[in-house]
Amino acid sequence: MEEQLNQLKAIIGEIYDLNAAKSLLGWDHQTYMPKGGVKDRSEQIATLSRLAHEKATSVEVGSLLDKLDTYSKQLNPDSNDACLLRQVRRIYDKENRIPASWITDFSKIITLGQSAWENAKRESNFSIFLPHLIEIIRMRQEYASFFQPYQHIYDPQLDDFEPGMTTLEVQEIFNPLRETQVEIVQRIAESSQVENKFLYQFFDEQKQWKFGVDVITELGFDWERGRQDRSIHPFTSGFGLGDVRITTRLDPNNLNPGLFGTLHECGHALYEQGIDPAIRRTPLATGVSSAVHESQSRFWENIIGRSLSFWQHYYPKLQQNFQSQLGGINLAAFYKGINIVKPSYIRIHADEATYNLHIMLRMDLEIALLEGSLAVKDLPEAWNAKMKSYLGVVPPDDARGVLQDIHWSGGLIGYFPTYALGNLVASQLWEKMEADIPTISEDIARGTFVSVLEWLRGNIHQHGSKYQPTDLIRRVIGEGINSRPYLQYLRRKYGEIYHIEF
Amino acid sequence: MEEQLNQLKAIIGEIYDLNAAKSLLGWDHQTYMPKGGVKDRSEQIATLSRLAHEKATSVEVGSLLDKLDTYSKQLNPDSNDACLLRQVRRIYDKENRIPASWITDFSKIITLGQSAWENAKRESNFSIFLPHLIEIIRMRQEYASFFQPYQHIYDPQLDDFEPGMTTLEVQEIFNPLRETQVEIVQRIAESSQVENKFLYQFFDEQKQWKFGVDVITELGFDWERGRQDRSIHPFTSGFGLGDVRITTRLDPNNLNPGLFGTLHECGHALYEQGIDPAIRRTPLATGVSSAVHESQSRFWENIIGRSLSFWQHYYPKLQQNFQSQLGGINLAAFYKGINIVKPSYIRIHADEATYNLHIMLRMDLEIALLEGSLAVKDLPEAWNAKMKSYLGVVPPDDARGVLQDIHWSGGLIGYFPTYALGNLVASQLWEKMEADIPTISEDIARGTFVSVLEWLRGNIHQHGSKYQPTDLIRRVIGEGINSRPYLQYLRRKYGEIYHIEF
Repeated sequence: MEEQLNQLKAIIGEIYDLNAAKSLLGWDHQTYMPKGGVKDRSEQIATLSRLAHEKATSVEVGSLLDKLDTYSKQLNPDSNDACLLRQVRRIYDKENRIPASWITDFSKIITLGQSAWENAKRESNFSIFLPHLIEIIRMRQEYASFFQPYQHIYDPQLDDFEPGMTTLEVQEIFNPLRETQVEIVQRIAESSQVENKFLYQFFDEQKQWKFGVDVITELGFDWERGRQDRSIHPFTSGFGLGDVRITTRLDPNNLNPGLFGTLHECGHALYEQGIDPAIRRTPLATGVSSAVHESQSRFWENIIGRSLSFWQHYYPKLQQNFQSQLGGINLAAFYKGINIVKPSYIRIHADEATYNLHIMLRMDLEIALLEGSLAVKDLPEAWNAKMKSYLGVVPPDDARGVLQDIHWSGGLIGYFPTYALGNLVASQLWEKMEADIPTISEDIARGTFVSVLEWLRGNIHQHGSKYQPTDLIRRVIGEGINSRPYLQYLRRKYGEIYHIEF
Repeated sequence: MEEQLNQLKAIIGEIYDLNAAKSLLGWDHQTYMPKGGVKDRSEQIATLSRLAHEKATSVEVGSLLDKLDTYSKQLNPDSNDACLLRQVRRIYDKENRIPASWITDFSKIITLGQSAWENAKRESNFSIFLPHLIEIIRMRQEYASFFQPYQHIYDPQLDDFEPGMTTLEVQEIFNPLRETQVEIVQRIAESSQVENKFLYQFFDEQKQWKFGVDVITELGFDWERGRQDRSIHPFTSGFGLGDVRITTRLDPNNLNPGLFGTLHECGHALYEQGIDPAIRRTPLATGVSSAVHESQSRFWENIIGRSLSFWQHYYPKLQQNFQSQLGGINLAAFYKGINIVKPSYIRIHADEATYNLHIMLRMDLEIALLEGSLAVKDLPEAWNAKMKSYLGVVPPDDARGVLQDIHWSGGLIGYFPTYALGNLVASQLWEKMEADIPTISEDIARGTFVSVLEWLRGNIHQHGSKYQPTDLIRRVIGEGINSRPYLQYLRRKYGEIYHIEF
């Protein structure tokens, strides 16, 4: 059995390498690639995708899995090998439903789609992106058909990012949450408002960059196993546990993206950098799901990065860097300003109280597009209508509306809900962490993050994808994803800032 | 036949994609990769190498080539398809002699070897690199054994870079050339010397970068299909005809590397950017051999970039940028200074008159290592002895001696001779170009490079690897590689600068 297992590990190692190379091609595409590389890059990514898929679905893998079936049942189910065999089996069964030709076609479509989206966004012209998005939706509908019978056409999309979770389950969480969040936002809107104009001044980009780098270094980002670059849309990408990269976007006239975007991506990177090296170069060596991944980024961005304790430590340093801009703003005012609640057009700039409403809007639209009840050409209109109804605002143009996110151009349908789920999980983890580490707020206020990072490493990071996402969450906090701690967190935080009795 | 040809093209397209991805992994390794990525990166490159090799040597390719054999003979032998089929056949026959396991092992060894070399060079400690180089030499000896019978163990190494050329042929060119070059260098040493101290002052790196960028833009470097980054050892790498990248090294206390290194890599890049798009994503879409590639880089670096005409145009601009450093140096003094002849330790800093001697030294040592007449551990000593005998100088440490070049750490044995051959070819092309374009010197003095670039595109670049290197050279100048035009060029140039009657 040893021999079969090693054979299987050799193949999954190759698949890992192909995927890592593909990720680097993608990273480079978004950071440094010259325009002229688009066509070649699209073919290269398509080829690597196809080869990885061919290997993952090969007869050889299938037969090795069959041979190892009995053996795997004798293993401790929590052992690395048992978890690996379960995961390889899951991927094998799933990917075997997807034809290689679909993967090649899809890969080409999304590489061209991303370039088209960039142009469309730059010119705020949805029609440049429209033919590409039509293709993408058509391909995702075809994708669902490989997984028939399904409860809902959206289920197979969601399963790619949140294995095991169904559309119905998400809707059961989201529907009551939406009502409550809309209520909370309304209560806040009726209160006396806070001020955040001071965030919109000129802030030297190099100073912003350096401040961000200093902070994430102290949070625990390992620069020997990672780097940071700039890109239009920030993202995290890993090419092995020893090379996890983030990108950031700096705006010289707005402190938010550089500050909180950097913290956000650092959260993703800390997760990947914290995975146990014993499971390197296997499909276990990555975050377990998008929601759990997002719980990490949102945890560092919001729960830590927008907390009063955090800024007790960092605000004097930030003031030092930007004396003329922030010298006259005290900590309390700064804290309120970075936690302002204000319905806005742009998801990535949205505050914690409105963010999930942006997500629910996207999930609704994705479902409508896939069901066919909404034509792609009518998407901008539908977008604006939903914005009006959920958030009370309508974007002035498509660049700030339907074209704002890179996701659809990259073929990611079913991904958005995981952002909101991530918010919920982050609060669930925080509640448990507060109970486990009594000194946590003082630690943060002292700029000491080792207790937080160690808790996350021990409970979440190290395990990579060994367990199913819901199993992992249950192991840590004893229950599945729910919105109770999140709503409690919102009420407590905004109750204080806006003087509201919830 | 159409169908078989398309099948073959689909496979070679995939091979091209794998190699392009591999090149990006390598580019990134030398530009942006964090330290922690070394181990993973080594495995990734090994995997892609092996998969490309498996495809190139597959039964499927062999059987398609056999089926297309008669068809290919009916084609116009200069047609793209005929050239492609010849090239694919050559690669297939050659690579089929190399076991896949050798490629995997070698790839891992050189990725680790490069990191070890970087450390060894930094600490000027050959022993860090020694065990890696022993492995590399052993692997290259094994490599030769796959091509038995050979005239000389060095032949199969050379053939990787200069297809069709033998060790004996190179030695028949180099042996008399060495004698004459040593004589020329001696005559120069006995003449009244020129001054170049002004090149060794503080030159702001950003200004150096910008000046280089401006110059290569005017030479014709296409920034929509390329970019420039910094690396320890400058190199050119392409991931498709639409994405050809160069790197440069800037020294704040020496103008040479930034200036001439940038021109050198630009020469390589102009070649790759000039290849006919009709042969894209095939093994024809690359420079035909290392010597021809080097003829392009050395042409722009030396024949153009160290010519009086070139600086008639650019020197006033350079002076403007570095007024305090160069304001008091007139054009004649500058021209002499950048053409100083002075035996030195470092190959890449060597002048045109001594450069080839560095190369011949390396070729001699490579041959001795492969033949086994020199033990790897004795290499530093042998290096220093040869330096003494060819150039009359001995490097003060291994960093400036045997550890100076990246090549061996990357497994490149048999590559160095092509640098000297490239110098010869550059002069051969220049002689022909001068005859074909009567206005060439005035064009250059006006900063107009379009006639030069068009000549190179038409005669060399566009063809990529359609013809064998010697065939290509014969097509353009009517004879094979020889040193006559090169020696004439040296005598004319240095006769003038050093007032010598050769």
